[in-house]
Amino acid sequence: MSKLAIYPGTFDPFTNGHLDIALRSVRLFDHLVIAITTNAKKTPLFTVPQRKALIEKSLPEGLDITVESFDGLLVDYAQERGSIILIRGLRAVSDFEYELQMALLNRRLNPAIETIFKMPSEEYSFLTSTAVKEIAQLGGCVDGLVPVAVKAALIEKFNNNL
Amino acid sequence: MSKLAIYPGTFDPFTNGHLDIALRSVRLFDHLVIAITTNAKKTPLFTVPQRKALIEKSLPEGLDITVESFDGLLVDYAQERGSIILIRGLRAVSDFEYELQMALLNRRLNPAIETIFKMPSEEYSFLTSTAVKEIAQLGGCVDGLVPVAVKAALIEKFNNNL
Amino acid sequence: MSKLAIYPGTFDPFTNGHLDIALRSVRLFDHLVIAITTNAKKTPLFTVPQRKALIEKSLPEGLDITVESFDGLLVDYAQERGSIILIRGLRAVSDFEYELQMALLNRRLNPAIETIFKMPSEEYSFLTSTAVKEIAQLGGCVDGLVPVAVKAALIEKFNNNL
Amino acid sequence: MSKLAIYPGTFDPFTNGHLDIALRSVRLFDHLVIAITTNAKKTPLFTVPQRKALIEKSLPEGLDITVESFDGLLVDYAQERGSIILIRGLRAVSDFEYELQMALLNRRLNPAIETIFKMPSEEYSFLTSTAVKEIAQLGGCVDGLVPVAVKAALIEKFNNNL
Amino acid sequence: MSKLAIYPGTFDPFTNGHLDIALRSVRLFDHLVIAITTNAKKTPLFTVPQRKALIEKSLPEGLDITVESFDGLLVDYAQERGSIILIRGLRAVSDFEYELQMALLNRRLNPAIETIFKMPSEEYSFLTSTAVKEIAQLGGCVDGLVPVAVKAALIEKFNNNL
Amino acid sequence: MSKLAIYPGTFDPFTNGHLDIALRSVRLFDHLVIAITTNAKKTPLFTVPQRKALIEKSLPEGLDITVESFDGLLVDYAQERGSIILIRGLRAVSDFEYELQMALLNRRLNPAIETIFKMPSEEYSFLTSTAVKEIAQLGGCVDGLVPVAVKAALIEKFNNNL
Repeated sequence: MSKLAIYPGTFDPFTNGHLDIALRSVRLFDHLVIAITTNAKKTPLFTVPQRKALIEKSLPEGLDITVESFDGLLVDYAQERGSIILIRGLRAVSDFEYELQMALLNRRLNPAIETIFKMPSEEYSFLTSTAVKEIAQLGGCVDGLVPVAVKAALIEKFNNNL
Repeated sequence: MSKLAIYPGTFDPFTNGHLDIALRSVRLFDHLVIAITTNAKKTPLFTVPQRKALIEKSLPEGLDITVESFDGLLVDYAQERGSIILIRGLRAVSDFEYELQMALLNRRLNPAIETIFKMPSEEYSFLTSTAVKEIAQLGGCVDGLVPVAVKAALIEKFNNNL
Repeated sequence: MSKLAIYPGTFDPFTNGHLDIALRSVRLFDHLVIAITTNAKKTPLFTVPQRKALIEKSLPEGLDITVESFDGLLVDYAQERGSIILIRGLRAVSDFEYELQMALLNRRLNPAIETIFKMPSEEYSFLTSTAVKEIAQLGGCVDGLVPVAVKAALIEKFNNNL
Repeated sequence: MSKLAIYPGTFDPFTNGHLDIALRSVRLFDHLVIAITTNAKKTPLFTVPQRKALIEKSLPEGLDITVESFDGLLVDYAQERGSIILIRGLRAVSDFEYELQMALLNRRLNPAIETIFKMPSEEYSFLTSTAVKEIAQLGGCVDGLVPVAVKAALIEKFNNNL
Repeated sequence: MSKLAIYPGTFDPFTNGHLDIALRSVRLFDHLVIAITTNAKKTPLFTVPQRKALIEKSLPEGLDITVESFDGLLVDYAQERGSIILIRGLRAVSDFEYELQMALLNRRLNPAIETIFKMPSEEYSFLTSTAVKEIAQLGGCVDGLVPVAVKAALIEKFNNNL
Repeated sequence: MSKLAIYPGTFDPFTNGHLDIALRSVRLFDHLVIAITTNAKKTPLFTVPQRKALIEKSLPEGLDITVESFDGLLVDYAQERGSIILIRGLRAVSDFEYELQMALLNRRLNPAIETIFKMPSEEYSFLTSTAVKEIAQLGGCVDGLVPVAVKAALIEKFNNNL
């Protein structure tokens, strides 16, 4: 049986930590979908199409990864896509509690859904999209924190030399 | 001596986790007041009178529980009501730290006040009012997460079939 | 209805943090039993009768507190004593997780049992029986950490001037 | 490509929480090996062959799950078995930190190894092998906490009616 | 070699917990700069010049502490000031994770930077600027929580008798 | 005024994480003493003189670091050495809580003592002496986890090729 896993998130923007989780995950399943949620609570820095394009530019070629977006409930989207596997990264205890809550809630909404957690490489354990945006906005260097395409988009967005 | 305990919160909306804490608490004390704070930081989904009505509809009959609202400091409200017992639910570590801070601060503001913590049944350990609102807004099913009166109010609010 | 609450623990030895929890708890219920468990995993410093005597000497007179010991399951002991209320202190996140586990397990063993958690005064937030024993053994001063009767017993035990 | 996942642990004894993780995991991969480590720090209650037999009796028939034991490093065992996927359960923050440490250490010892984390059903969130042994030893009822074969073995071991 | 340490923060307003950290820190280094960040995410209650004046009024005389403000990246400001030492207070686990993330990120942005963490006296372990503002706004007493100059400013701001 | 800081620990054995903390700390103070406690609860793998020799071999030349050992209370040892500064590494939340407890307790025993916390480089965030011993005992490779002198001592101790 072919296995399709979904890696959902806001990805505003996609960081090297997200990339690390994606690359580690595609090795475990036959196909991975990176799924951008459009239900953002905060005003995003990049539009969904911009985020989709940045993720696609950041992925190495030849991997069984596609990038999509969804609105509505994640469990409904997973069912439409025929997947029961959700992947989430865990960096810290605060992540853990929120993610545990979401995993149990999603299981309640659809008992067939399984959430699995992966830890990024320790070099990305401190990395969040929010921190990346703050650094870029203040003119700090984001080399090594995000893929080059994302760095270029951040420079253009904030109109400064990172 | 008759003991009056206060269970304060935002209850926007009242969930089955809140109901569980209330039912467990009233067994321990002679009377329980569920006290809705009007000092919400965020714009609430339901008005205070709506929340009060929903809680009242959700409680089984014949229990020594009343529903009230208060503004100002919780410790001042407790003193007016002649109660020294505050009840708070604890689900997770993040709850724990915030609640510890509030309990110590309230004790500082009024040393007579005692906060006691109760844990909801594990089936509600993942349940928050915020999550319920998100699910309802996205059209997910909230059966088993909230009392039926709250479910009906959520459907009316979001004008969809949950 | 008269309420009896049980405050179980190893109390090897009883500290000012334990005393603080006991004094705060007896105000909330009609009667408090401090219940020393005899199922210690580690070899205790003081025997159960010694611990019982030290607690009794440390309590102010005139309070509705009795000191007992029990073996077997805590939930069985509570039932024998006619109590459904267990009291536990919470100092830190590590306490919290262990206590949550025990509370849920006890509720599973006897659904009528309610565990309530109280936080000691912040001046005792760092205080454990283990730390007290280490300090006393190394000749450190335990003034303010334990009742005077316990201090005297520690000096006698370690045969040094604290 | 066929995927083999390894679920390592001490399983002294196998609980319904372990069973839940195993059943959820085998759905995600083609084959699951439950691997009993023989490097226990503490003296186990059951021998490795006893634990192996109890797990085998507890598994439903017809699933692609085998039960094995290993000594030495887990990453070496995984390599011998041709697996890069380790599965671990996460119940609480304290689990999380220990598991994070082990996952990063195992990745350091063998970068090909991927650890994935799964959360048990919330009804088992409080369940540990240690707690089960304590309850059984004190004569408490372990119904619903462990498979029937494990219950029988605990009764025989402690020679009492649970 | 003379050592200059920087204690950065929002200080909106400066509390007795901040004062405690500052006084403990200046003993360890030759000079301390309390550095107010102007990059506040939320609308502050006091302007940067107001906060600077309140901190200066709250410090005892004769200490090697100066109060400054900065915008841009903290690591860039530290470099301009010729300091490699950042001081941050740690109260709780939630502080810890955020601060760990910031420390690792700052180290990434400038490997010469060292962040050191100090814990306030336990009597301030529950104290945050946010809590102080809420109490003052609701008319609660902030005696002992903030320096007298800050108390006076809060009264003036909220136009009530604290 | 010259500042002497003390970095206390068991160091059984000294790891690259300990080395990282030591090197980061000596930059902040004029002199650093790595102080091996002889009050180990568990039977150590290496004797105190062996641990002292291994630390000395692992330190780069020309740094103001000395290695000592002490018994009795850490606060008494610090006073004898004329130091008020204790340095401790923080890796995880579980570290944090234990260290917070020890820091507050030490401050209680001697109010002049200041404990400061430093975080190791994220590449050592998963590293403990206990883990190193387990890996070495099971024949795993400890390259990059410990200094070369410690690696050699571990090989000799466990008589195998790491």
